[in-house]
Amino acid sequence: MDRVVIIGVGLIGGSLGFALKKAKIKEIEVIGIDTDRNTAIKAQRRSAIDRWERSEDMETVLASASLVIVATPIQAISKIFQTIGPLLPENCVVTDTASTKASVMQWAAQFLPPHVNFVGGHPMAGKERPGIDEAEASLFKGATYCIVPSPSASPAAVETVVGLAQTAGSEPYFVEASEHDLMVGGISHLPLFLASALVAVTSRSPSWREMSRLASSGFRDTSRLASTDVTLSTGITATNTAGVVRWLDEYLEVLQGYRDRIADGQAMEEYFSEARVARNLWVQDQNDPPPIDKTLEAMEIPSFTERMNEMFFGGRLGKMMKRGEDLMEERERYAKDQEKEKERER
Amino acid sequence: MDRVVIIGVGLIGGSLGFALKKAKIKEIEVIGIDTDRNTAIKAQRRSAIDRWERSEDMETVLASASLVIVATPIQAISKIFQTIGPLLPENCVVTDTASTKASVMQWAAQFLPPHVNFVGGHPMAGKERPGIDEAEASLFKGATYCIVPSPSASPAAVETVVGLAQTAGSEPYFVEASEHDLMVGGISHLPLFLASALVAVTSRSPSWREMSRLASSGFRDTSRLASTDVTLSTGITATNTAGVVRWLDEYLEVLQGYRDRIADGQAMEEYFSEARVARNLWVQDQNDPPPIDKTLEAMEIPSFTERMNEMFFGGRLGKMMKRGEDLMEERERYAKDQEKEKERER
Repeated sequence: MDRVVIIGVGLIGGSLGFALKKAKIKEIEVIGIDTDRNTAIKAQRRSAIDRWERSEDMETVLASASLVIVATPIQAISKIFQTIGPLLPENCVVTDTASTKASVMQWAAQFLPPHVNFVGGHPMAGKERPGIDEAEASLFKGATYCIVPSPSASPAAVETVVGLAQTAGSEPYFVEASEHDLMVGGISHLPLFLASALVAVTSRSPSWREMSRLASSGFRDTSRLASTDVTLSTGITATNTAGVVRWLDEYLEVLQGYRDRIADGQAMEEYFSEARVARNLWVQDQNDPPPIDKTLEAMEIPSFTERMNEMFFGGRLGKMMKRGEDLMEERERYAKDQEKEKERER
Repeated sequence: MDRVVIIGVGLIGGSLGFALKKAKIKEIEVIGIDTDRNTAIKAQRRSAIDRWERSEDMETVLASASLVIVATPIQAISKIFQTIGPLLPENCVVTDTASTKASVMQWAAQFLPPHVNFVGGHPMAGKERPGIDEAEASLFKGATYCIVPSPSASPAAVETVVGLAQTAGSEPYFVEASEHDLMVGGISHLPLFLASALVAVTSRSPSWREMSRLASSGFRDTSRLASTDVTLSTGITATNTAGVVRWLDEYLEVLQGYRDRIADGQAMEEYFSEARVARNLWVQDQNDPPPIDKTLEAMEIPSFTERMNEMFFGGRLGKMMKRGEDLMEERERYAKDQEKEKERER
């Protein structure tokens, strides 16, 4: 019997629970822990977990855990690592689901004992409403799942988290923590602040009551992320400050440029066209992912269930890790190419 | 037989055509004109119009038109008014569907003869893709339809455009041109530039190829308007420059404030919370419109078909106009209250 313990069974933890349970993996037990007892009870009632355990009593459960998934707000993770560190057995695999990775990797190095394997994770999907009521098995289906192994994590531990990502229907994506934080700063965190500022600036207008009646699907979509759970947003600004500020600075510069051109009556066509083409290409890629994904798909991978079973018992190095290394190398090559191109342009 | 002529049978004109045809109004003929012959042919083949007419031959058609809907890009409207002005019969009703209203109202005053009734219109809905292929009868269902009567428009003409809006399933909303442009500058045009700038800043990054794989539903929604038809975007910046610059200035200030607080490690919770509450209230209102709408609904209105028939023949002043006046008064009262409140705060 392998034991998976999910700490924090809200939207993210609950959805991973559902995915694990749905995969009908033999001989595993999914246990949920949550500081909010009602959430834990509801997670069990909804069958996102096999059973819940009080956080005061987690010692026994953790002592026999094969995999621990920390799916709480990032603000709680440092404390949780300090609490669970001494309770975890040899070779236990620990992962998280937080939106930023550098801080989490640092806390893991600092507070988890060396006999534990930490592999950071970040499934790139969510909903504006948090909570177990919103959890569902398919939340991460088709999403990219960032995987950030700690330097000391065993190959088997990395495989376990890769298996978790694939069980959730996601595509594993190996990335380094600081690179992760910089990238999500642009495509995930920046949009959040843009949406909040849009709502702030319009809703404080004396005409808001009237304006709000005219607001339509464009406003709805552009402002959607303003409804994001505030704990998530503040966790991001606190743990990815540099990544976020860098993007905000660039963005402010670009938008100021737009503003000045428009005010001067200069043509904007080229700017709008460029953005339109870039977005349409991205949408196209989303619907038809680039070859890099297909390579991964083309690998002869056993069914999720088989793999998860193997993984808990396995030390199989296998193609999965090789693929991770290849991706790392490819990225380095790409970055170097980019550098060279820039040199040439100068 | 009443004749409705739609000039420009793309997404907007085609959708209005569909709505008119679907309403099965007795004794009307819907004729489409488009500079792109293929669009006109397709509009007829899809039955968005009864038949199309070459723009070179529109003289005869226009001479007997009861209602002319100009649904072209705003860049073309001034020229169209100059062309059709001398061809329109006494009491003909002319309306448009452009995203900004002050310029259009000015062109109407300048180029349409006094015996024609111009009533500006702006249905608050659309799609990122333009063209007749995207047109559908339900495009404007549930949307707010801004109605901007010219000072000289007859009550019957205003009723006709109100009838058109309601035939499309929209809610008519009387508004003054400059007020319209300022309001849509915030809730419709600003989001467009924010989305474009988001795509510009992220897609020009050397990491874009990697980042784009991590981009998820949040990026998709926030950037959606970057895919807007460029003709529409440039039409907006050209005809609502002041309205747009004012909002961009306010927005840049708010976002710079966010950036500075985040960089200083100051708490953002209050800001995120405020925006979240404002957006959630707006979403709630969208799903359950405020009482002001219900009054309009509660009026004993004849079926769309009945009304459209009456309107083409009628000079019925009726409740509709009264309601328009009431709305105007209410808005003025509200603006005055706001002013007073501000005074008090000082």
